Amino acid sequence: MFINRLEKEILAKKSPLVVGLDPDLTMFPPSLKPAATASRTEIAAAILAFNKSIIDQVADLVPAVKPQAAFYEEYGWAGIKALEETAVYARSKGLLVILDAKRGDVPNTASAYARAYLAQDENPHAFPCDALTINPFLGRDSLQPFIDAASSNQRGIFLLVRTSNRGAADLQNLRIEGAKHPLWQEIAGWVADWATKTRGANKYSPVGIVAGLTYPQEAQSLRLLLPHSYLLLPGLGTQGGQVADAIPCFDPDGLGALLIAARSIIYAYLREPYINRFSGPEFAQAARQAAADILQRLYDAGYRRE
Amino acid sequence: MFINRLEKEILAKKSPLVVGLDPDLTMFPPSLKPAATASRTEIAAAILAFNKSIIDQVADLVPAVKPQAAFYEEYGWAGIKALEETAVYARSKGLLVILDAKRGDVPNTASAYARAYLAQDENPHAFPCDALTINPFLGRDSLQPFIDAASSNQRGIFLLVRTSNRGAADLQNLRIEGAKHPLWQEIAGWVADWATKTRGANKYSPVGIVAGLTYPQEAQSLRLLLPHSYLLLPGLGTQGGQVADAIPCFDPDGLGALLIAARSIIYAYLREPYINRFSGPEFAQAARQAAADILQRLYDAGYRRE
Repeated sequence: MFINRLEKEILAKKSPLVVGLDPDLTMFPPSLKPAATASRTEIAAAILAFNKSIIDQVADLVPAVKPQAAFYEEYGWAGIKALEETAVYARSKGLLVILDAKRGDVPNTASAYARAYLAQDENPHAFPCDALTINPFLGRDSLQPFIDAASSNQRGIFLLVRTSNRGAADLQNLRIEGAKHPLWQEIAGWVADWATKTRGANKYSPVGIVAGLTYPQEAQSLRLLLPHSYLLLPGLGTQGGQVADAIPCFDPDGLGALLIAARSIIYAYLREPYINRFSGPEFAQAARQAAADILQRLYDAGYRRE
Repeated sequence: MFINRLEKEILAKKSPLVVGLDPDLTMFPPSLKPAATASRTEIAAAILAFNKSIIDQVADLVPAVKPQAAFYEEYGWAGIKALEETAVYARSKGLLVILDAKRGDVPNTASAYARAYLAQDENPHAFPCDALTINPFLGRDSLQPFIDAASSNQRGIFLLVRTSNRGAADLQNLRIEGAKHPLWQEIAGWVADWATKTRGANKYSPVGIVAGLTYPQEAQSLRLLLPHSYLLLPGLGTQGGQVADAIPCFDPDGLGALLIAARSIIYAYLREPYINRFSGPEFAQAARQAAADILQRLYDAGYRRE
């Protein structure tokens, strides 16, 4: 089960922190930055080397990594190959891999996406990830193939409910006529139903959600509305979310939520206070320190570490 | 300009029909079906060979093809390589390529997707497609990078507004408090605004929409609401949409909409009446005949052919 493997790592490492692997060549250290004329294969090699360095430094501090597909798709098939190799490497270091690809389509196509990312491990074509983010816009029938695949194949899904960007309110906060609640709460109602049906004897279902830490009130409401779903919390750091706001999203055992940090960890060597302590070649050590510092802030804010 | 190139092909071929390239190995003819033990590279080679045969047969009958990303992502980087090679081949035969990937994410990530699929042709890493489908769930700021890239780089986008699946109503038909209209119409309002801003001196903007032919009343309302946007119309055939329902979606010049058919064309050799006239190795000729038959039905229903 995805949730069991995830919780084993969270408890062993006393950490609900997930490192986002969003490769951005403009922020790579000089030693790894590809030349302007580099081929896609050369760029993919640099991305893989960057990710491996980060993974080596954070593997004992976090339960999972979250590669963002867009930053690999930028380099076509070579980028996807680097993504797959990153995921294989992360798993070899005891990390779970949450692929942030926000897929969603009509049922026949959603089934193909589910085969792509939530297949059985025995499937020789299975993508080496443990969970996938998905998008609810096409409605419940479009999500069912993902739910079925996650349940059957020991994987997880995180459905977008309230995203971390400013524009999230445009659709997600629209109030529904007659229902007296905003759209995001309508989707939460679907999740509550699926979580009950799929959790079996476990506290948490394989059906989790994405709730931006930039809207702490909504995230905390979702915690109460969805006692059987993991909350994936993006928006820390660059987007303005605060560590302390995550605290009410965890259950008394320190489970039930995952705090994401991407650029604020992997490019820490470019910013205060790390820029003064780590040189370019030490970018991965800076990432480790930034991850440790976020964890310390979580503990200081009351995250249960025993 | 994407729209200019598209309209040149539509007018030259007297055809607003787009062939969906959704490779499904279970429906491949025996000559191309990979063995159960085939590697991903072998499967990718079979997919490319299948697509090339279809493209050779339909290139003079349609302005564009629409590969569905999910069916390539199923085979990881090897599948994406087959997708890229398919797109390059289609373009070499004078076809435009609309990548159906329904991407959408927070602004920083949306910019990476836009760089991936809507880059300038001069960019050595540019994916060989002319237009991309995108998802509105994250709101307007999440769509702006796609609009900017399409406008600047001569590409097109098609935003999901009313999808073709049954479950589409779950979110898209929710009525908005105070607004007196359903959610899909709210999104149409955004598109109307962007289309006005981006069309320049052209009748049609690079910002188009997806409107399922399975909901003909909504599709026809969208035609009236959005006089400056192309309508991409999926849902014909397997999903139950009817050719005649597409007619009101075209303008008097036969422009302004694209009718999609995927499985009903590319796997025509497996169904009546084509199964009696074409053998397995003639699957591509059957696809050509099925495309020609849909075009004839469009003409018979009143599509302007002069």
